Amino acid sequence: MIIREKTGLFELLFATKGSVLPRILPRILAVSLLALIVVLIDGWVTSLPHLDAAPFAVFGIALSLFLGFRNNAAYERWWEGRRLWGQLVADMRALARDCRVFLPEDAPRQKVLKLALDFLHLHRINLRRLKARDSTQAWSGEDFSQADHPPCAALNAANVAVAKAAPDGFARKALSERLASIALAQAGCERIAATPLPYVYSLLVFRTTYLYCLLIPFALLEDAAWITPIFVAIIAYVFFGLAEVTEELAHPFGETVNGLPLDAICRTVEISLAPHLDIKAPPALQPQGFYLS
Amino acid sequence: MIIREKTGLFELLFATKGSVLPRILPRILAVSLLALIVVLIDGWVTSLPHLDAAPFAVFGIALSLFLGFRNNAAYERWWEGRRLWGQLVADMRALARDCRVFLPEDAPRQKVLKLALDFLHLHRINLRRLKARDSTQAWSGEDFSQADHPPCAALNAANVAVAKAAPDGFARKALSERLASIALAQAGCERIAATPLPYVYSLLVFRTTYLYCLLIPFALLEDAAWITPIFVAIIAYVFFGLAEVTEELAHPFGETVNGLPLDAICRTVEISLAPHLDIKAPPALQPQGFYLS
Amino acid sequence: MIIREKTGLFELLFATKGSVLPRILPRILAVSLLALIVVLIDGWVTSLPHLDAAPFAVFGIALSLFLGFRNNAAYERWWEGRRLWGQLVADMRALARDCRVFLPEDAPRQKVLKLALDFLHLHRINLRRLKARDSTQAWSGEDFSQADHPPCAALNAANVAVAKAAPDGFARKALSERLASIALAQAGCERIAATPLPYVYSLLVFRTTYLYCLLIPFALLEDAAWITPIFVAIIAYVFFGLAEVTEELAHPFGETVNGLPLDAICRTVEISLAPHLDIKAPPALQPQGFYLS
Amino acid sequence: MIIREKTGLFELLFATKGSVLPRILPRILAVSLLALIVVLIDGWVTSLPHLDAAPFAVFGIALSLFLGFRNNAAYERWWEGRRLWGQLVADMRALARDCRVFLPEDAPRQKVLKLALDFLHLHRINLRRLKARDSTQAWSGEDFSQADHPPCAALNAANVAVAKAAPDGFARKALSERLASIALAQAGCERIAATPLPYVYSLLVFRTTYLYCLLIPFALLEDAAWITPIFVAIIAYVFFGLAEVTEELAHPFGETVNGLPLDAICRTVEISLAPHLDIKAPPALQPQGFYLS
Amino acid sequence: MIIREKTGLFELLFATKGSVLPRILPRILAVSLLALIVVLIDGWVTSLPHLDAAPFAVFGIALSLFLGFRNNAAYERWWEGRRLWGQLVADMRALARDCRVFLPEDAPRQKVLKLALDFLHLHRINLRRLKARDSTQAWSGEDFSQADHPPCAALNAANVAVAKAAPDGFARKALSERLASIALAQAGCERIAATPLPYVYSLLVFRTTYLYCLLIPFALLEDAAWITPIFVAIIAYVFFGLAEVTEELAHPFGETVNGLPLDAICRTVEISLAPHLDIKAPPALQPQGFYLS
Repeated sequence: MIIREKTGLFELLFATKGSVLPRILPRILAVSLLALIVVLIDGWVTSLPHLDAAPFAVFGIALSLFLGFRNNAAYERWWEGRRLWGQLVADMRALARDCRVFLPEDAPRQKVLKLALDFLHLHRINLRRLKARDSTQAWSGEDFSQADHPPCAALNAANVAVAKAAPDGFARKALSERLASIALAQAGCERIAATPLPYVYSLLVFRTTYLYCLLIPFALLEDAAWITPIFVAIIAYVFFGLAEVTEELAHPFGETVNGLPLDAICRTVEISLAPHLDIKAPPALQPQGFYLS
Repeated sequence: MIIREKTGLFELLFATKGSVLPRILPRILAVSLLALIVVLIDGWVTSLPHLDAAPFAVFGIALSLFLGFRNNAAYERWWEGRRLWGQLVADMRALARDCRVFLPEDAPRQKVLKLALDFLHLHRINLRRLKARDSTQAWSGEDFSQADHPPCAALNAANVAVAKAAPDGFARKALSERLASIALAQAGCERIAATPLPYVYSLLVFRTTYLYCLLIPFALLEDAAWITPIFVAIIAYVFFGLAEVTEELAHPFGETVNGLPLDAICRTVEISLAPHLDIKAPPALQPQGFYLS
Repeated sequence: MIIREKTGLFELLFATKGSVLPRILPRILAVSLLALIVVLIDGWVTSLPHLDAAPFAVFGIALSLFLGFRNNAAYERWWEGRRLWGQLVADMRALARDCRVFLPEDAPRQKVLKLALDFLHLHRINLRRLKARDSTQAWSGEDFSQADHPPCAALNAANVAVAKAAPDGFARKALSERLASIALAQAGCERIAATPLPYVYSLLVFRTTYLYCLLIPFALLEDAAWITPIFVAIIAYVFFGLAEVTEELAHPFGETVNGLPLDAICRTVEISLAPHLDIKAPPALQPQGFYLS
Repeated sequence: MIIREKTGLFELLFATKGSVLPRILPRILAVSLLALIVVLIDGWVTSLPHLDAAPFAVFGIALSLFLGFRNNAAYERWWEGRRLWGQLVADMRALARDCRVFLPEDAPRQKVLKLALDFLHLHRINLRRLKARDSTQAWSGEDFSQADHPPCAALNAANVAVAKAAPDGFARKALSERLASIALAQAGCERIAATPLPYVYSLLVFRTTYLYCLLIPFALLEDAAWITPIFVAIIAYVFFGLAEVTEELAHPFGETVNGLPLDAICRTVEISLAPHLDIKAPPALQPQGFYLS
Repeated sequence: MIIREKTGLFELLFATKGSVLPRILPRILAVSLLALIVVLIDGWVTSLPHLDAAPFAVFGIALSLFLGFRNNAAYERWWEGRRLWGQLVADMRALARDCRVFLPEDAPRQKVLKLALDFLHLHRINLRRLKARDSTQAWSGEDFSQADHPPCAALNAANVAVAKAAPDGFARKALSERLASIALAQAGCERIAATPLPYVYSLLVFRTTYLYCLLIPFALLEDAAWITPIFVAIIAYVFFGLAEVTEELAHPFGETVNGLPLDAICRTVEISLAPHLDIKAPPALQPQGFYLS
C-alpha cells in the first residue's frame, strides 16, 4: 500500500509511484495511434464517415455504469478485506486478554497465544499464495507447513491447547467463542481470495472500452480533427486507468502497490501481544519508498 | 464459476468461454437486421422520419437506471450467497473445534460432524434442486432423502446427537448456538433461492431495451446511416449482455457459468474437517476448463 | 409474488400478469392524448413555441435521481422484509432444536412450539391488517384475537411456558435469547409496515413526472412531430411504470402481485416444525396462476 | 410523520400538507423573477449573451451528484433512526419477557420495567430537546429531570434494580446484556442527533443550486425565451424541494412533518408492556390531520 | 466539526467558516486565468481550434464517477468513525453498569472505570497522533505514555483489574465480553486512521480535474467566449471543492473543520461515568466559534 502524506501539486500531477500510468501507457499509445491514422486517412486519403457525437452519449453512460459498478465492487472487496484484518487484530488482542482472565497458568496461556500468532502468519501466507515459508520466525515452534490447510491446523492446535488448559465451562465458552470469531474472519478473507469478481464483467468492460476508443475518433473528425489523438489518449487514460485500479483493488491480498499491508498488520498484532508474552515488542514496520508491505 | 488468471488482451477480446456473447448473438443479429432494413427502406424506398438524438438521452438514462439497479441487486444476491457459504465454512470449522472442547468422547463427536457434513451436502442439493442424490458418499450413513426437508432432517439429527452427548449446560449452550448459526446461514441461502428478483423488473428492462433498439435507428439515419446496424449491434451487445449477466448472477446457486462453486466449497469443508474425523483429506476440487463447479 | 421460470421472448414482451401496464394505461393514454393535441394545434391551428431538447436533460437527470432513489429504497424495504422473515424461519427452526436440547419433557416443549406457530400466524395477520381471523387452525388452542397486540400476547404465552418448563439457568438463557431474536425480527417487520417511505417523495416524483410528460411534446415538435405521442407514451410507460412498481415494493407485506409470499413462508415453518411436533408435515404451498400468496 | 393512504391523482398534484412547496415558494418566485428580468432586458433593452446549453450539462451532473448524495445520506440517517427505535421496541418487549423468566418476584420486576419506560420517555425528550417535562406520567415515580443526563440516570436506576433483584448469575448476565443492547440503541440515536451532516455540503449544494438557477436563463434565451421563467421555476422547485426534504430527513427526531413519530412509538411500547405491568393498555396514538407525532 | 443551527440565506451564500473556498481559491484563480489567456489569444492573436462541447460529456461523466465514488467512500469513513465512537460511548456506559452488577466492591469497580477512561483518552490521542500528553488529567493515576501501544496498555490494565476483582465466572464472562467489544471499536478506528483511501484515486481525480479545466475553455470559445473564465471558475469551484471536502472527511479523526469532535465525545463519556465514580460531572464541551473540537 502506498502511504503518502498530503502531497503537493507537482507530485499529484507527475508522480508515477502508485500511479497506473506506466502500465497502461502502451494501450493508451495504441489507441491514440489508431486515432491518428483515422485522422490522417480522413485528411489525406479519403473522406471517412463523420458520426454525430450524440449516439456516443449512451455509450458513455453504459461505460460509466460498468466501470462505476466494478469500481464500487472492487473497493468494497478491498475494504472488506481490511475490515476482516481489523477484526483479526481486535480478536487477537481480546484473545490475549481472555487468556489472562480465564486461564490461570502462564505456560498454557502463552502457548495459546503463540499458536494464534502462527495461525495469523500462516493465514497471511495462505492468502498471498506464498510458496516457501517466509522469514517469519515460527512462534510456537511447531511446523504446520505440511498440513492440508496450515492456518486451520494452527488454529486447531490452539483449540486443543485451550481445551486442555481451560479450568471450567466459562473459560471453555469464552475462548471457543473467541476462536470462532477468528475463524469467521479467516473464512471471510478466504472467500474474497477464492472468489474473484465474475469474469464476465472484465470481458464486458474491456470490450466496451476498446470499442469506444476505436469508434470515438469518427465522432471527433468534424470538430476536433487534429486534437483527436489527444482526446482519445485522455479518455483512454481515464477508462483504462480506472479498469486497472479496480483490477488491483479487487485482489486486496496481493503484493501489489494497492494491496493491503498484511505484513504491517501482522506486526501490529505482534506488538500488541508482546506484553502478554513477556517479550520486548518488535518495531512497527515502516513504508519503504512510500510502500508498506 | 469461471476461474482465470489475469488474461492477455487476446483472451479478453475474443474469449467465448464465460462470455455471454454466444447466447445473445441471435437477439443482436435480429435487431441489427431490423436496423439494416430501416436504413435500406430510407435509402431506396421512401424517406423515413429522421429523429433527433437528444430525446433518446432520457431513454438511455432510464435504461441505465434499470440495468444499473438490476445489476447491483443481482450482484448483491450473488455475493450474499457467497458470504453465507463462507459463514457455513467458518461455522463448520468452529463446530468441529467446539466439539473437541465440549464433547469429551470421540464417537459422538464424530457422529455430530458427520451429520453436519451430510447436512451441508443436502443443503447444496436442495439449493440446486438436484433430483437424484448425487455421487457424494453419505458421511453419517443415515438416509435423509425421504424427509420432507432433507437438510433440516440432517441438522435435527445432529441436534439430537448433541443433546445426547453434551455433558453439561455449557456444552449444550455452545453447540446449540453453533447449530443455530448454521441454520441462519441455511435459511439465508433458501431465501435467495426461493425469492427471485421481482418479475416486473425483467419486464421493464426487456421491454425498454427492445423499444430502444427498435427506435434508435431512426435517430441515426441522419448522420450515420450505413454504420447504423453496427451501432445498434454494439448497443444491443452492451445492454442485452448486461441483462443476461444479471440474470445468471441473480440465481447464484445455479450450475451456470457464473454460479457459485458449491461443490468446491463443500470439498473445502471436508478438507477442513478431515483432521477432526481422523481421515485423510480429499484433494481440493480443480477447475475443469476454467470452470469450477 | 409472481413465480415464473425463465420466460420466453413472447411472454416477456406481452405478459400482463405481473406487469404494471394495465394499471398505468389510463395515465399513459392521457398524456399521449395531450401530446397529440399539442401536435395538432401546432400543425393546424397555430404555431406553438419549439423548445430545444437540451434543457430537458437536467429534467431527466432529476427524474432519474428521484426514481432511482425511490426504487432503491423501495427494493431495500422489500428485501429487508424478506430477510426478516428468513430470520424468523431460522429462529423457529432453532427454537425447536433448542427446546429439544434444553427442555427435558415433551409436553411443555410442544406447547412452546405451538405457541410460537400461533405467534407466527398472528404476526402475519397483523402485518397484512387482516380483520377476521383467517382459516389457519390455531395451533395452541388458545385465543389471542382479543389481546391488544395478538402476536405479542402469543409470544408472551410462549415465554411463560418457557419460564415454567426450563430446568436450569442455561435453558432459561438459551430460550430467552431465542425469543428475543424472534421479537427483534417481529419489531423489524412492524417497523417496515408502520413507517412508509416519506410521503413527500411521492409528491416530488409524481409532480415532476407529470410536468415532464406535459412539457416534453414542445421539445419534440421540431424533429419528431408525428411520432411525439408515441414517444411520450414510451416515456410515460417507463416512468409511471417504475413509480408504480416502487409503490408496491415499498409495502412488502401487502397482498399485491409483488408482495412477499407470507402464507408460503408460514407453511415452510410448519413443515420444518412438523417432525418436532410428531405430526405429518402439510404440503408446501404452490403458486396459483404464477402467484404465490 | 405524514400518514396517508394511497392518494388519488388530485391529492398528489395539489396537496400542500406534507409538501415542501409552501416553504420554498419565495425562493422559486425570486429566481423566476430574475429570469424574467433577464428575458425582458434581452428583448427590450440590450442583447445579452446567449449561452449554449451544452456546458450546463456538467453543471447538472454536479448538482445531481451533490443532491443525490445528500438525499441518500439524509434518508439513511432517517431510516437508521427508525431502525434504532425499532430495536428499542424489541428490546423493551424482550426486557419484559426476560424479567418474567429471570426475576422470581413481581415487585422488583415491575420496578425494572417502569424505570425502563421512564428511560424511554426521557430518551425521547432528550432527542427532541424538549425543555419542560412533557405531560407523560412518570412511570416509576422517581424524578430524573435534575440529573446531568436524565435517560442515563433512569437506565442506571433500572440497572441497580436488576442488580438487587437478580437471584443468580444467569439473571445478571441476561438482564445486563439486555440493558447494554438498549444503551447501544440509545447511543446510536444520540449520535444521529448530535452529529449533523457536514455543514460544508449545505454550502456546496445551496451555492451550486443558486448559481445554476441564475445562469440557466442565459442558456434558454435562444430557444425558449418566453418560457424561461416557467422553466426556471420548475427546476428551482425540483432542486430546492429536494434540498428542503433532505434537510428535514437529516434531523429524524425533530417534530417536523417528516420527523419520526416518537410519541407513537413510545405508546406502542407502553401497550406492549401493559400486560406485564397488569394494567390496561392505553389506546394507540392516531394521526391528527394525517400527522402522527 | 462545525455546529450551526439552520442558517439564513446570507450565511449560506457568503459564509467562509466551514467553507473550503479560501483553501481552493488559488487553484480556481489559476485555471480561470488560463481560461482568460486562451480567450485573449483566440480573440487578439490567432484563432484557436474550437471544440464541440459534446465530447466533453463523457469527461464530465467520468469526473462525476470518480468524485461521486470518492465522496461516498470518504463520507462512509467519516460516518463509520462516528459510529465506532458511538459504540465506544455505549460500551463505556454498559461497562459501568456491568461493573455495578457483577463486581461487589467499590474500589476495584472504580479502578476499572478509571482505567477505561484513561484508555479512551489515550485512544483519542493515538488517533490524532498528538505527540505530547495533552492536558487531560489521568484518571487512574498510572502512566501509560511509555508503553509501545498506550491505549492497549491501559485496556490491558483494566483487564487485569477485572481478572482480579471478578468474583465468579459470570462476572469474568460479562466483563471480558464488554472489553472485547471496546477493543473491536478501537481496532475499527485504528483501521480507518491507518488505511487511507487508495492513493491512486487522488491521482486520477486530480489529474482528470485539471485536464478538464484546462480543455474546457476550447469548448466554450464558440458560444461563451467572454464568460468562459467565470464558467471555468464555477466548474473549478464545484470540482475542487468536492475534492477538498472528501480529503477532509476521509481523515475523520483529524483536528480539521470537518473532523469528528473527539474531545466532546470523551467529555460525554466522562459525564456519563461521573455518577458511577461518585464525582460531580464536568460540563459538556461547547462549540468555540461554531467549532466543536
